[in-house]
Amino acid sequence: MSVGLSAEMAEPTGVIRTLDAIRARRPLVHNITNAVVTNLTANALLAIGASPAMVESVDEVSGFAAISDALVVNLGTISADQAGAMRLAAAAARAGGRPWVMDPVAVGVLDYRTRVARDLLAMRPNAIRGNASEILGLAGAGGAGHGVDSTAGAASAIAAARALAAESGGAVAVTGETDYVTDGDRLVAIRNGDEMMTRVTGMGCTATAILGACLAVESDPLAAAAHGLVLIGIAGELAAARAHGPGSFQVELLDALWRLDPEIIAARAKVQPL
Amino acid sequence: MSVGLSAEMAEPTGVIRTLDAIRARRPLVHNITNAVVTNLTANALLAIGASPAMVESVDEVSGFAAISDALVVNLGTISADQAGAMRLAAAAARAGGRPWVMDPVAVGVLDYRTRVARDLLAMRPNAIRGNASEILGLAGAGGAGHGVDSTAGAASAIAAARALAAESGGAVAVTGETDYVTDGDRLVAIRNGDEMMTRVTGMGCTATAILGACLAVESDPLAAAAHGLVLIGIAGELAAARAHGPGSFQVELLDALWRLDPEIIAARAKVQPL
Amino acid sequence: MSVGLSAEMAEPTGVIRTLDAIRARRPLVHNITNAVVTNLTANALLAIGASPAMVESVDEVSGFAAISDALVVNLGTISADQAGAMRLAAAAARAGGRPWVMDPVAVGVLDYRTRVARDLLAMRPNAIRGNASEILGLAGAGGAGHGVDSTAGAASAIAAARALAAESGGAVAVTGETDYVTDGDRLVAIRNGDEMMTRVTGMGCTATAILGACLAVESDPLAAAAHGLVLIGIAGELAAARAHGPGSFQVELLDALWRLDPEIIAARAKVQPL
Repeated sequence: MSVGLSAEMAEPTGVIRTLDAIRARRPLVHNITNAVVTNLTANALLAIGASPAMVESVDEVSGFAAISDALVVNLGTISADQAGAMRLAAAAARAGGRPWVMDPVAVGVLDYRTRVARDLLAMRPNAIRGNASEILGLAGAGGAGHGVDSTAGAASAIAAARALAAESGGAVAVTGETDYVTDGDRLVAIRNGDEMMTRVTGMGCTATAILGACLAVESDPLAAAAHGLVLIGIAGELAAARAHGPGSFQVELLDALWRLDPEIIAARAKVQPL
Repeated sequence: MSVGLSAEMAEPTGVIRTLDAIRARRPLVHNITNAVVTNLTANALLAIGASPAMVESVDEVSGFAAISDALVVNLGTISADQAGAMRLAAAAARAGGRPWVMDPVAVGVLDYRTRVARDLLAMRPNAIRGNASEILGLAGAGGAGHGVDSTAGAASAIAAARALAAESGGAVAVTGETDYVTDGDRLVAIRNGDEMMTRVTGMGCTATAILGACLAVESDPLAAAAHGLVLIGIAGELAAARAHGPGSFQVELLDALWRLDPEIIAARAKVQPL
Repeated sequence: MSVGLSAEMAEPTGVIRTLDAIRARRPLVHNITNAVVTNLTANALLAIGASPAMVESVDEVSGFAAISDALVVNLGTISADQAGAMRLAAAAARAGGRPWVMDPVAVGVLDYRTRVARDLLAMRPNAIRGNASEILGLAGAGGAGHGVDSTAGAASAIAAARALAAESGGAVAVTGETDYVTDGDRLVAIRNGDEMMTRVTGMGCTATAILGACLAVESDPLAAAAHGLVLIGIAGELAAARAHGPGSFQVELLDALWRLDPEIIAARAKVQPL
């Protein structure tokens, strides 16, 4: 890929521009997500400046996906009804030229959701975010996790991520101690975040939702995914510095997303084209 | 309407009496609500002194509505199953002489829920609470919002609120920077609350749930709705003064509802008959 | 029962050993629970060191129960679909020799869930936890509560708990100001906890989930249940001492679960064989 794009990716300027655009445009982000994280996801999207809505009835998803600025599909508590709604919504998003992102929670562990995720993959999500086990599982490269947690380091899933990006035509993010994002060609590493993010439920889901908001304002999926991971990663660092445990961490994370500003981003963003 | 009633409405005495009655009687409030706010709604009702229960199976709602002191119906994540449960519950509430309140989340934006809400309106809710776009949408007066957010000021929906109150026979509240409540005849403005309440998901839903608790102990729907909006509004002001962002705001809001007392209410209530 | 076991039960050593084992083994705890508490339950399990997953589709529960270390079944927002998933999961857990725990929320108040709970009881849960009204209701001994809240003191349900333990072959816990746990033979009282735990939704559900984590690492159901109630009870005491209301209490509770250590447990555990 062009050296210019890759070099720009290392600068915090793009992250700041994406955050500013979210706050200025308040993109409507349509979520079909899991029962555990609906409240946290909605509040994280509000905290970063987006306008979230949770709509998942088969009677409503097509219409809503068509008027939203981005769609977030999360398989965490997938059911047959919800899978049908996801297919309708993804089709409407694609038909309307709206970006969408998929979070393949626990794919590779359970056959049913793995099949649903493979079906959705064929609908070409603009971005996918998962941990290493999930990305390996979605790529059919093994990697069953420990429930919703990964049993592999993020770097071990880079090849699978590249393959999925080639298949979907979008960006694929593998998150872990270091995050990796690829569009099949370019590869970027993000070293923001804090270990406490693994001790609270829904941090991955929240990252995916924020990627959705970024996709609504940034047309390069690789950049949108990288920017989103920097934003949630920095917020996690700020929250961990103030928290006394996972309860206060979740509270501080929302406050930190709300208070993100250009100086903080410039001082803390750790993006590196590889 | 009688001048006496309107004048009394301007005094904090009624709000204090309603709060005292909730804490003394612990009304059982039956909620059929959306997936995003179940936890917050239950905790807000507990914090103000009510006894919340979330029961939405078609196998259980009729029986439960009949033994509850009030019913709260919220269309935020409506499905066909849930719509059926809402109809059964509203019918049981009316048959048993129990008050019920409807929250028409995002009505006007999506056709399906607009039809469900119109059906429910025909079952004569004792109170309705929505933002301006939702009240306009429910009244068939246009007003499609930006997802779940309003695109119109509350005052622009007063005429629609009056029309809905005439149709339902109950009180209708339009919330915004200033809140308005009407029973078709009387009109009251409430100027409590804080802008931070728009930055956390479910504040409108929480207000509606608290209205449900107020309806359980105050037989005049206009007064119940106005008192409920004062209570949540003052709690929002207290929370905003202590919060550092939307995460801590949500925590402080529950603490503030818990700590509301007659002095705080007397000092802060801003109700004005118009 | 052996005097030795009962005497050991009075020592905090067992509680500390159970907590250490959870943190060391990170048991995968499969939850089929109610819509109000999914997030809190998952975070409480993470805070204590377990690995929670919420899986409730009929397409997935059998497979997931078979690979999990324990199953938690909570009837709080039961539906026909969810009841079917619970039966499949409980059968898979038993077939695989995995322990499971049932929380009969509001059983005795509503006929439908009472029947579902009786069916599940026949599948011999290793532990059951409820308030007095729920335990009385499940045992068919009357006791309908006020919604999800008990109208009876915990001691009044000891005989019902013994009968249920004899029927299920597991341990039965009745929680209240004092908690009682019996396996039909032995009886233990736990005097940890704080009144603020009744002012936040989902504390009983959280206790049940923690019992599930304890069952995964402690083979004696009576000990597992008693240890779990001590752990959540001490966390509740620590949280109440720092909280300013129910909002901050919920945050502090998760932080307290995270910070539990042998010294705190040794200083505070109040377990007494009766």
